Amino acid sequence: MKKKIAVVLLSGGMDSCVTTAIANEKYELALLHLNYKHRTEKRELKAFNDIANFYKAKHRLIVDINYFQQIGNSSLTDISIEVSIANLKNKNIPASYVPFRNGNFLAMATSWGEVIGAKKIFIGAVEEDSSGYPDCRKKFLKQFNNAINEGTKPTTKIKIITPVIDLKKYEIVKKGIFLKAPLNLTWSCYKEEKIACGICDSCALRLRGFQIANIKDPIKYKTVPNYI
Amino acid sequence: MKKKIAVVLLSGGMDSCVTTAIANEKYELALLHLNYKHRTEKRELKAFNDIANFYKAKHRLIVDINYFQQIGNSSLTDISIEVSIANLKNKNIPASYVPFRNGNFLAMATSWGEVIGAKKIFIGAVEEDSSGYPDCRKKFLKQFNNAINEGTKPTTKIKIITPVIDLKKYEIVKKGIFLKAPLNLTWSCYKEEKIACGICDSCALRLRGFQIANIKDPIKYKTVPNYI
Repeated sequence: MKKKIAVVLLSGGMDSCVTTAIANEKYELALLHLNYKHRTEKRELKAFNDIANFYKAKHRLIVDINYFQQIGNSSLTDISIEVSIANLKNKNIPASYVPFRNGNFLAMATSWGEVIGAKKIFIGAVEEDSSGYPDCRKKFLKQFNNAINEGTKPTTKIKIITPVIDLKKYEIVKKGIFLKAPLNLTWSCYKEEKIACGICDSCALRLRGFQIANIKDPIKYKTVPNYI
Repeated sequence: MKKKIAVVLLSGGMDSCVTTAIANEKYELALLHLNYKHRTEKRELKAFNDIANFYKAKHRLIVDINYFQQIGNSSLTDISIEVSIANLKNKNIPASYVPFRNGNFLAMATSWGEVIGAKKIFIGAVEEDSSGYPDCRKKFLKQFNNAINEGTKPTTKIKIITPVIDLKKYEIVKKGIFLKAPLNLTWSCYKEEKIACGICDSCALRLRGFQIANIKDPIKYKTVPNYI
């Protein structure tokens, strides 16, 4: 039987890679990647291509947008704002927050999904064990799904799937290892494109996950602090 | 007292121009325009600039995107699909439908609005007297507003305002005339960039509005059928 198509938002980071591995179990992959003039754009695109090749994904859409840079106000898209060193106890929304990014990415995924006949959009958002971005929360994703249903053709019927949203990072690591996801091909660092810094929010969350899981992260870091 | 900022989605058509006129009564305008590789992109951009200059808008954001053309499946972004001649009795979704376009545009407006501190997003969507696009309906806009509230910072609090959604086209014409909106600067035609065709869906809806209002449309047409 022909597999049904699922759009998967694949940034090239660990969470979206494991989400891709999960989607790949049941669906024909349609992988969507965004180049949004963020600091590590080139390295993340390489990670996307490597992972897409690993899964031999038939459908791929790479979208280039400038407007997050035009809008600014995030350390990821505005080089005048420094990428801060991780403070995993801080519960405020960090400077890396790109305003309503997932709202934009999900809208694109919906447009593509409606045309290629996908009934599912997979997104690797993580709610608890994350940086606290408002657009990564279940409440938001539920409301956005309602908006999709009202704003597309009656036959479209797309459902947002969030397989890692309630997982801790160490559980995502374990899930990835179990599914043989190519974590060695992923890129998470917000700051560097050659060797991951090990100290930005994204590196810190990832490294803590590997450390709690007691598994060695297959990618290289400049420095590996103890985050447990 | 300093006026509050409102983001207004201004395509350069009649509905968005009248919506801008309404927003201008109370708010400092932040005008957002999209070049999405649609057939009449250049002409609509001129209309946007003309209207923005007319209102001396302080904040302007012009966004270029390619992905609707990459995704295709609309006569507005795929030149292999013909722009159909209007059939105003047809209640099906026409080929000009760009999948989830307003979902994408509202997401961009939200990102910009969150950064510049706008509490309102104005959109000139029309529900009844229109082409029947699912992303122009009140139900959709309400759900999208809920998604905005859940997916942005707690302090953001943006409300979508739809001042013409329940109006018939002739009422929009009259409202525009009453507010001295520069309807002569607008562009509605889906097909042509020099003289409006007069027969595409968008021209037909507009012309019918002027004809019922018994007011002469200030722009030129190749042909002006009677739509009443």
